[in-house]
Amino acid sequence: MPPMLDDTSQGVEPTANTTLPQPARRLRLTISYDGGPFQGWQSQLHRDTIQDRLEKAFGVLCAGKQISVHGSGRTDAGVHAFAQVAHADVPAATIHSPERWAMALNAHLPAQIRVRAVRFVTTDFHARFTARGKVYRYRIWNAPVLPPFEAGRAWHFPRPLDLERLARGAALLIGQHDFAGFAANRAWPPETTVRTIREASVRRRGPLLTLTFNGDGFLYKMVRLMTGTLVRCGQERAELEWIEQLLAAPTKVVKTTFAAPAHGLYVVRVLYR
Amino acid sequence: MPPMLDDTSQGVEPTANTTLPQPARRLRLTISYDGGPFQGWQSQLHRDTIQDRLEKAFGVLCAGKQISVHGSGRTDAGVHAFAQVAHADVPAATIHSPERWAMALNAHLPAQIRVRAVRFVTTDFHARFTARGKVYRYRIWNAPVLPPFEAGRAWHFPRPLDLERLARGAALLIGQHDFAGFAANRAWPPETTVRTIREASVRRRGPLLTLTFNGDGFLYKMVRLMTGTLVRCGQERAELEWIEQLLAAPTKVVKTTFAAPAHGLYVVRVLYR
Repeated sequence: MPPMLDDTSQGVEPTANTTLPQPARRLRLTISYDGGPFQGWQSQLHRDTIQDRLEKAFGVLCAGKQISVHGSGRTDAGVHAFAQVAHADVPAATIHSPERWAMALNAHLPAQIRVRAVRFVTTDFHARFTARGKVYRYRIWNAPVLPPFEAGRAWHFPRPLDLERLARGAALLIGQHDFAGFAANRAWPPETTVRTIREASVRRRGPLLTLTFNGDGFLYKMVRLMTGTLVRCGQERAELEWIEQLLAAPTKVVKTTFAAPAHGLYVVRVLYR
Repeated sequence: MPPMLDDTSQGVEPTANTTLPQPARRLRLTISYDGGPFQGWQSQLHRDTIQDRLEKAFGVLCAGKQISVHGSGRTDAGVHAFAQVAHADVPAATIHSPERWAMALNAHLPAQIRVRAVRFVTTDFHARFTARGKVYRYRIWNAPVLPPFEAGRAWHFPRPLDLERLARGAALLIGQHDFAGFAANRAWPPETTVRTIREASVRRRGPLLTLTFNGDGFLYKMVRLMTGTLVRCGQERAELEWIEQLLAAPTKVVKTTFAAPAHGLYVVRVLYR
């Protein structure tokens, strides 16, 4: 095999650049984003996604090298994050401090995506596989008029909602259940649909209703389907028994289809050991 | 003069439609807007302004009739409003309740402009000429990273600011002064540049600094120039005596040019008797 030379080779061991792994360093990123302008998290051809933007910023900072960014999970178009977590392996010989990584990435990202923190971690950290749970928040603006500053950032629900019914419905979701009834079909072959919800709470501050879900994992669209279903109950257009039926359904054929819109949903935290 | 017929004439008194005023009703509007997507308040040829959008919505609701919307004042491109006030005279025979007016207008406005309240008022109310003062707020995000949800909604100022100096500087502005030193040239022939500031305060809540100004009137760019100048003092790049000099300058040739950016500024309230 002839030696291969490229711009990054230093004249020492010319073949090593392409055949041996360079010393790498794993970065753990905490990322906040306004999902509005993007087509979700996951990289897709001809789409502008958050992962794409991050990988592009890494590319600029790593001399054009393709760096993969692994998120804790995908978020759909419109979904926001206060603190999404991702990791990426970068050549060790690039930037030398986590603070400088954060600054440099932000300098190459749009204002709607911000790297809030960077940490150097060992390779046994994996944003997705070592996550022990997640906290989501869903924001509902429950008043006749949605303030312009909430456009695209909360679900505008102008009709009355019975907060007590919402809270009672949320309480039914807590615990270990088969949440197949609260999942959009996506995974095939089907993964397990049993999840544990540790917290499901509803809070009102003026016109703003905030639902918080803390669980060991969430199925595809599960938070939006739980929220939509709770709102349906809060409107008194469905009974709370429906939630019990959805959780009990052993055949997994009873499903809710009331998904709250993406733009009210926020990834609040990803939990690790 | 020959009788003139148009689509809106009912066959009764054909000339009356164009020669006699129709019975009109004055609406007082309280409007909230995210200034980001628009080129300011005031209607301009080939520009997309908030006034344009409101007049367009009125046009649809008044069968194409041109309705003028009079704001309490202009706001520049990027400036926001929690509660801007405007008035408009509409044909009395259109919509019959203030609530329905608000709903109908919002149905024809983008989500970034919301009519929060409508009241029927007498014609001695004029949004601009009967205003007795205004309250403005200026938001500064004083931390290394601007959260994506604050992009375009606060001035990102990552360097340290001495809050106490800001507050002492603000206190100097309170009272009746000639604010020519805090005005961008616009009015000609020059109007009086004496104004009374009733409140100028600074508050910090975490990384968010909020400056509030309550005055009987504000010159062109005055709030942004006061804010920019205070920040300059807060950075210790200028002495507080500079503010005293700007207020004292009898020749009005001493001017500050440190204007804070438009996107941190909010019209909070317009004061009437």
